[in-house]
Amino acid sequence: MFQTFDSAGDPSVGKPRVAKLREWLAAHDLDGFIVPRADEHQGEYVPPHAARLRWLTGFSGSAGAAVVLKDRAVMFVDGRYQLQVRQETDQTVFTVESLIDNPPSAWLKDNIGKGARIGFNPWLHTVGEVKALRVSAGKAGAELVPVTENPVDAIWDDQPAPPLEPVEIHPIAFAGELAKDKLARLAAAIEKDGATHTILTDPSSIAWAFNIRGNDVPHTPLALGFAILAADGKHQLFMTGKKFSRTVAAYLTQLADLHEPADFEPAVAALAKVGARIALDPALAAEKLRALIADNGGTVVEAPDPARIPRAVKNAAEIAGSRAAHRRDGAAMAKLLAWLDRQEPGTTDEIAVVTKLEECRRRTGEETQMPLRDVSFDTISGAGPNGAVIHYRVSHATNRPLADGELFLLDSGAQYQDGTTDITRTVPVGRPSEEMRERCTLVLKGLIALSMLRFPAGTRGSEIDAMARMALWRHGLDYAHGTGHGVGSYLAVHEGPQRIAKTGTEKLLEGMMLSNEPGYYKEGAYGIRLENLILVTPAEPVEGGDIAMHAFETLTLAPFDRRLVKAHLLTRDELHWLDQYHARVLAEIGPMLDGETLAWLEAACTPFPQEAKG
Amino acid sequence: MFQTFDSAGDPSVGKPRVAKLREWLAAHDLDGFIVPRADEHQGEYVPPHAARLRWLTGFSGSAGAAVVLKDRAVMFVDGRYQLQVRQETDQTVFTVESLIDNPPSAWLKDNIGKGARIGFNPWLHTVGEVKALRVSAGKAGAELVPVTENPVDAIWDDQPAPPLEPVEIHPIAFAGELAKDKLARLAAAIEKDGATHTILTDPSSIAWAFNIRGNDVPHTPLALGFAILAADGKHQLFMTGKKFSRTVAAYLTQLADLHEPADFEPAVAALAKVGARIALDPALAAEKLRALIADNGGTVVEAPDPARIPRAVKNAAEIAGSRAAHRRDGAAMAKLLAWLDRQEPGTTDEIAVVTKLEECRRRTGEETQMPLRDVSFDTISGAGPNGAVIHYRVSHATNRPLADGELFLLDSGAQYQDGTTDITRTVPVGRPSEEMRERCTLVLKGLIALSMLRFPAGTRGSEIDAMARMALWRHGLDYAHGTGHGVGSYLAVHEGPQRIAKTGTEKLLEGMMLSNEPGYYKEGAYGIRLENLILVTPAEPVEGGDIAMHAFETLTLAPFDRRLVKAHLLTRDELHWLDQYHARVLAEIGPMLDGETLAWLEAACTPFPQEAKG
Repeated sequence: MFQTFDSAGDPSVGKPRVAKLREWLAAHDLDGFIVPRADEHQGEYVPPHAARLRWLTGFSGSAGAAVVLKDRAVMFVDGRYQLQVRQETDQTVFTVESLIDNPPSAWLKDNIGKGARIGFNPWLHTVGEVKALRVSAGKAGAELVPVTENPVDAIWDDQPAPPLEPVEIHPIAFAGELAKDKLARLAAAIEKDGATHTILTDPSSIAWAFNIRGNDVPHTPLALGFAILAADGKHQLFMTGKKFSRTVAAYLTQLADLHEPADFEPAVAALAKVGARIALDPALAAEKLRALIADNGGTVVEAPDPARIPRAVKNAAEIAGSRAAHRRDGAAMAKLLAWLDRQEPGTTDEIAVVTKLEECRRRTGEETQMPLRDVSFDTISGAGPNGAVIHYRVSHATNRPLADGELFLLDSGAQYQDGTTDITRTVPVGRPSEEMRERCTLVLKGLIALSMLRFPAGTRGSEIDAMARMALWRHGLDYAHGTGHGVGSYLAVHEGPQRIAKTGTEKLLEGMMLSNEPGYYKEGAYGIRLENLILVTPAEPVEGGDIAMHAFETLTLAPFDRRLVKAHLLTRDELHWLDQYHARVLAEIGPMLDGETLAWLEAACTPFPQEAKG
Repeated sequence: MFQTFDSAGDPSVGKPRVAKLREWLAAHDLDGFIVPRADEHQGEYVPPHAARLRWLTGFSGSAGAAVVLKDRAVMFVDGRYQLQVRQETDQTVFTVESLIDNPPSAWLKDNIGKGARIGFNPWLHTVGEVKALRVSAGKAGAELVPVTENPVDAIWDDQPAPPLEPVEIHPIAFAGELAKDKLARLAAAIEKDGATHTILTDPSSIAWAFNIRGNDVPHTPLALGFAILAADGKHQLFMTGKKFSRTVAAYLTQLADLHEPADFEPAVAALAKVGARIALDPALAAEKLRALIADNGGTVVEAPDPARIPRAVKNAAEIAGSRAAHRRDGAAMAKLLAWLDRQEPGTTDEIAVVTKLEECRRRTGEETQMPLRDVSFDTISGAGPNGAVIHYRVSHATNRPLADGELFLLDSGAQYQDGTTDITRTVPVGRPSEEMRERCTLVLKGLIALSMLRFPAGTRGSEIDAMARMALWRHGLDYAHGTGHGVGSYLAVHEGPQRIAKTGTEKLLEGMMLSNEPGYYKEGAYGIRLENLILVTPAEPVEGGDIAMHAFETLTLAPFDRRLVKAHLLTRDELHWLDQYHARVLAEIGPMLDGETLAWLEAACTPFPQEAKG
């Protein structure tokens, strides 16, 4: 299994470890310390040795921070984790604040004394974050002190070693563009930004630029490291040689000078000393790098990571790979859903479904000679009220049977070498209520609104997010998350910068992949989410149209449960889209199935009766 | 008539006047000068003595700038005016640049020589603008030189005097809140911004805060002036006493110390000298004010005009006034549309319609004892291809008959003491083509999408703009303007900050008034625009809804031309909305009409046949 079902957090660890941290702070003349969740790469996943927040506090969520002062300690988490943080941390040790409304950068100014010295590790905070923290501390008359040794590492006796997983070459058949060509594009971008160099700190950017994949963090095939790219093409990659086979080392040597991670700081300092103009993405790069460059006489050029847009815009090989991955994944989903339909209510549970789904994906991967490399995130398998927990992770402690009359929400994804998938379906267990059917239909109308949309080039995700909400809004309902995130190509399932959300300020460009996942959550009762991945494509021209339009090609191939569709609430256009989609699912997935699964799929993809087409 | 039909621009004026300006520049050791369209209040309309750009160049558009150098002169206009600027200015004198893609702040750096001294009048540019101009001039190694005397005024022999139109008190029955209470709210806002004072430079804000109206510029009842508001309540108003009757002077004296305009600069300087912290809106306030404060030892606090949100959020009296104004205006529109329907194709023209419409409004205003004070802008009366010119202004030179088989677009508004209106209807002359009918129906679908929308509190205009475009987008069509602008209460018909557009970053708050005006323009053929004013209101709760929603109440009351509606392209919900709207129009406007106009309205508001309700 690629995921476990252990209870994640342990509230007993906080008290002794925070006490030890306070001893260290006292010995080092500090009044407090900030412990973020991030490592020096600012990704969604961190390797075990960098899970410092979790080790110190017990909190296992994917975002958060702690501030430990002499006499108090505070956890900062967002709305998703308000419940979980209270289960996973010792409430006699920590109080809880909102990471959104009152993050450390706001909290410090009102809560620390004049003259206080607050430590932080400049490798673990971005340039932008530290700027905000400094302003806040300054307002309190306090000082923000960068430390050279992380105190959590100092008191963490059995801290694991950094990962040394082997690096593999991502074949050109899947990457679609040679690394040397990508690096040449990036070198040109550095020049355009008015810089001599750029530092890639995001391992997704390194993986994309060098056409390599690794296995250093869960569920995303990243090899942790740094790269300094140069406008003149003299690139340097900082990654331990222990991760490279002879073949991989020979391959990478053609692209860059290879160095051990310990050489990274000196290399940045050396470039700064000869007056380099080094571009950093203030939202991604560690404050330590800014300081290293500035302190050694170099110039920091603030510019977005030059790989983010080229990585987001998929090429023909990546798109072909994704289509193949989605056919395979759709076949696996059909097997799972057909199996699930045969289970009597109350006879299976959330963990059993996760286990069965991984088995379906493994088997389908083997049959198609494209094995499942990983799940793209811990499957969200939520029955009844657990479905309403947006980022639910099932454990033995929370596992629920799929009981009669409840809804079941299943959000999962796969990592195949040709593509990353992410799909959510919601199904009834036994007979759903009319309210469940109505609200599921409203969510489906939102998904279809985006699926059918045509939009002019240059449209931003923020301009179309509300289209997936309009039907819910009319009924006084909404969902508290964005409608779509970017998706990588055998990379991170959450990949920026493109998104369909209020905060989606990037233009949607041809070749970008995103999710389309409206939902509805009734706390304590049930959750509904429907998710397809979509690809920005040129729209087929319409007769009489004035301007070229973009549209979304739906990549995901799996039926929507018709028992949750109230067809008379759909317009003719919406019903037509649904019938056409189901016909396509059957045509593309059917040939990969047989027996009772094929029969199930045929029934699931039947057109709705004509009289329903109001 | 409140508007004229003269040809606006005169290309013959540019050559001699630019020559005179160059003489002045040479005598004053300047290499160039920037002439903006704005006056010191940055409003949409300027009084005749401040129409310096038009006097110098001939260009009569509502936005633009000129830069005059020794050997060349450049006009900067946006897309709307690319054609007009070539008709109204002498192309042997001026070249043309895009005000959007290459405004003076971008153009300077590439087009002026090192060491050049470029003059500007610091009263006519905002703080933000000058910041950008300085950066650009700096890149060219040139200097931006503020002048104390405006050279255009110096060479303008018969420059009119500034307007001295009488100020009137805006009665509490229409204003809904006493000026002293508004001023107390503003004083609290100044304190919250960390300032001791704020300067109101926008006459709309002064009119709103003091409950006064004037007549200094066309179509907007503004009294030009400045105000310094103080957190401690010691307010000062700078407006010549010649505009005040004894009653008005007595009224205003209770609210503020009254001063002549000449006292304004010394008053700002005096406050700065005693260390005042003075708030300026960098998007509205003149650079001159920033310099005055900074040069005299005061502190500039950058903060948005504190009146803009309170002014935008209408109170109960303003809303009641607007509803009454819209009933009256709807009756006038019904008279006009009924009359228009009786004209044979080819027998009337654009100017005749404008004249007739003003007559309908005047008569209806007299009948209801609420006279028409002004039109809220020059009526856009566009037949055939003229309808495709988004900001078309009809003149004797462009006047077209309403010819058979063409569309006619009529966008107009009124200023009544109880409210400002703005309405657009498009009607066929004779028999419209199927394409016209289809596209008009798509535009109507957009208007209805916003009209029916419910949305959560906190939604921004930028998030819903695309909903009015969705139907057009599906057919490869779009329109090159925002969907809605804010509207004042017997004030400017274009009022910020609320808007429904890609740039609409303000939250839509209960009580804000906006326009809802999607369109479609086929260059050289026809234009379609449909416009209602709408009010943000709490939505009626829906059974089973989780959260309180906002909705739009439609204020405008006039039928949409049914000959341009293809009913089968509307959904059941859309047709239901249209029938309900027409029923409401008939119920509210019908009682104000009789005879053939009432008969026309009854026919225009008939429900669509049931079989159309697909």
